[in-house]
Amino acid sequence: MDERQRARRPGGRGARVGAAVHQAVTDLISERGYGKFSVGDVADRAGVADSSIYRRWGSLETLLTDVALTRLNARSPMPDTGSLAGDLRTYAATVAREITGPDGLALLRLAVALSSNGQQGLRARDDLLAERARQLQSMLDRASERGENAPDASDVLDHVLAPMYVRVLLGLDPLTPDYVDGLVDRLL
Amino acid sequence: MDERQRARRPGGRGARVGAAVHQAVTDLISERGYGKFSVGDVADRAGVADSSIYRRWGSLETLLTDVALTRLNARSPMPDTGSLAGDLRTYAATVAREITGPDGLALLRLAVALSSNGQQGLRARDDLLAERARQLQSMLDRASERGENAPDASDVLDHVLAPMYVRVLLGLDPLTPDYVDGLVDRLL
Repeated sequence: MDERQRARRPGGRGARVGAAVHQAVTDLISERGYGKFSVGDVADRAGVADSSIYRRWGSLETLLTDVALTRLNARSPMPDTGSLAGDLRTYAATVAREITGPDGLALLRLAVALSSNGQQGLRARDDLLAERARQLQSMLDRASERGENAPDASDVLDHVLAPMYVRVLLGLDPLTPDYVDGLVDRLL
Repeated sequence: MDERQRARRPGGRGARVGAAVHQAVTDLISERGYGKFSVGDVADRAGVADSSIYRRWGSLETLLTDVALTRLNARSPMPDTGSLAGDLRTYAATVAREITGPDGLALLRLAVALSSNGQQGLRARDDLLAERARQLQSMLDRASERGENAPDASDVLDHVLAPMYVRVLLGLDPLTPDYVDGLVDRLL
């Protein structure tokens, strides 16, 4: 069993280290913001050695992406309600709740920060976005298979996600349920 | 004549100081990013005293907003082509050019950064957005006065500006003219 597998064994020491490191990253993000802490800061906060973090994640960018993906996937799994309208409304409401929650803005800023962070940041951002795009696409594919007229994933990005992201990033009006439903209804 | 008026006299020492300070801010933004320089750094770079900057702008946030507004207004005045479709297409194309240009991403990040920068940042952001919203609204009002069926300014934000902003902030596909025209056509 190599270090990576050992580190991921559920419930073992690796899982405890993983949870402590993820929590340390989340705390440092809200206290200092991106670009203002190092792998060393994360290690100190989590009570682990720098080398444990480098061995498991390789770089700060990869660690940040892992934290963001884990939170996104845990908090907003793709819905499967049986209809496209139901799925999209549920999905949009979940994203709205997630990005207006306590760590939501931090998550959006992470995506923006990774996009300006050199090649390693770009790869991490691509992983983050590709994973979400795959999940969205499979929801749209299920609708097509049921014979529904599903939009492109890029239209969902442009006309449902982007307006919500921009309103949160710029700190504009709150995302009310009516507003969020309206974005989905307009798209469909 | 008070300091503020004197500083803004076109062609005078105030104008030269203003240009040097704006240039210093733009340079520091691209070299270091937001949150990584102070009024003192701007003053050093521009070759002026800190006190000149505080007297004229009051705070770093106000200075940053002034720089952003000046660039936005200089580079993308609102079009007046005689038709709503023409105005919106021209406007969208200009915004696309501006945010994909060398300082565009910096400008978007400024709006995002100001939104998380305490009360002074929020006021500066409000000034920045309110000025653009006023300009957009007057373009839409002209269309209504001509009897055209103009969308709300918030729909222009959600369905034309937000998709472009998010694509640039996340470093996604380039904004092609077809893509940008498509956003306007879909809205109209």
